[in-house]
Amino acid sequence: MAAANPQFLFDFGSPNAYLSHLVIPEIEKRTGAKFEYVPILLGGIFKMTNNRSPMEAFSGIKNKLEFHAIETRRFLQRYHLQPYTMNPFFPVNTLLLMRGAVAAEFDGVLDRYVDAAYHHMWNEPKKMDDVEVAVKAMTSSGLDAERLFTRTRDDEVKNRLMENSQNAVARGAFGSPTFFVGDEIFFGKEQLRDVEELLVAQKA
Amino acid sequence: MAAANPQFLFDFGSPNAYLSHLVIPEIEKRTGAKFEYVPILLGGIFKMTNNRSPMEAFSGIKNKLEFHAIETRRFLQRYHLQPYTMNPFFPVNTLLLMRGAVAAEFDGVLDRYVDAAYHHMWNEPKKMDDVEVAVKAMTSSGLDAERLFTRTRDDEVKNRLMENSQNAVARGAFGSPTFFVGDEIFFGKEQLRDVEELLVAQKA
Repeated sequence: MAAANPQFLFDFGSPNAYLSHLVIPEIEKRTGAKFEYVPILLGGIFKMTNNRSPMEAFSGIKNKLEFHAIETRRFLQRYHLQPYTMNPFFPVNTLLLMRGAVAAEFDGVLDRYVDAAYHHMWNEPKKMDDVEVAVKAMTSSGLDAERLFTRTRDDEVKNRLMENSQNAVARGAFGSPTFFVGDEIFFGKEQLRDVEELLVAQKA
Repeated sequence: MAAANPQFLFDFGSPNAYLSHLVIPEIEKRTGAKFEYVPILLGGIFKMTNNRSPMEAFSGIKNKLEFHAIETRRFLQRYHLQPYTMNPFFPVNTLLLMRGAVAAEFDGVLDRYVDAAYHHMWNEPKKMDDVEVAVKAMTSSGLDAERLFTRTRDDEVKNRLMENSQNAVARGAFGSPTFFVGDEIFFGKEQLRDVEELLVAQKA
């Protein structure tokens, strides 16, 4: 039996998930594995686990956010990435965008949707929780944004996002980015190294 | 000019520092580097940075301590280590033991002191903040514990431990274990991999 695809649980609001998204293609190339992108609502996971973003949780702790920045600098160096542009509207409420990802998945256009949404969140950052801004941006990237965002009102879409988030917590998630290889959970962009190691080991 | 020795900032109260201590000899063997052991008071660093132990900080967050246990399990596997025995008196106040480490450093017996103290904290765990227990344990390991613990009352010893801890925070530390390679700071036993990578790169 072939090993299950690794999973990447993502929310467009997390810059560390964005950086992971940039690295996943080269890991896929090196390992031959194909990541399954699983839309979750990070705010929902935080509520269910009583967790907070690093920015909130570490803000009162001396040196901790600075160390977080050092880790990001090292990650960018390791994978030869450019620094992201901090979204000036951070934190962006991603409910619409994440429901849109589920709708895009139902429509078979998740890959393009993910690339476009990440672009407009962290590459040319916009206030993507403003529906007009979001429609305009995603349309400019060639997506049928009107259709996708209309579908975000469907129960099927809403429920799927909630179920994905609840399942994530049931499997051990508490933040972003989270990866699964089978039942093995990995947390944080730094652990993409461990994900890759395990994928290589499984292949051997 | 030769690269400076890597530094390991340690407190006997931290199980993650203990596990790092077990791995350092093999990293020294592979890289040819020799780690400098720098005694710090973790409780002091927590006070200066407003930080807390993972056990406290994560106790209210679902899945977080469980993930911490997964990381430890993976660390043990990676380095072929046995699980440590949780010290039943945890958290042990390590002020006496850490001042004793400074005294041992002054006396040129830090290596033996460190091995012995870690043994009695995490291998055959005892209530090492009880001075009688500590004297007996360290004496049984062949150290002049009476002399060392008497010296913990010297200002020279007290001040050195305080200075080490203050310097650590000034250089970016906030918890345990912390490592420095030159000015590059690393945090957490998992980052011993990064420490080793940097040591290898510096050598090349």
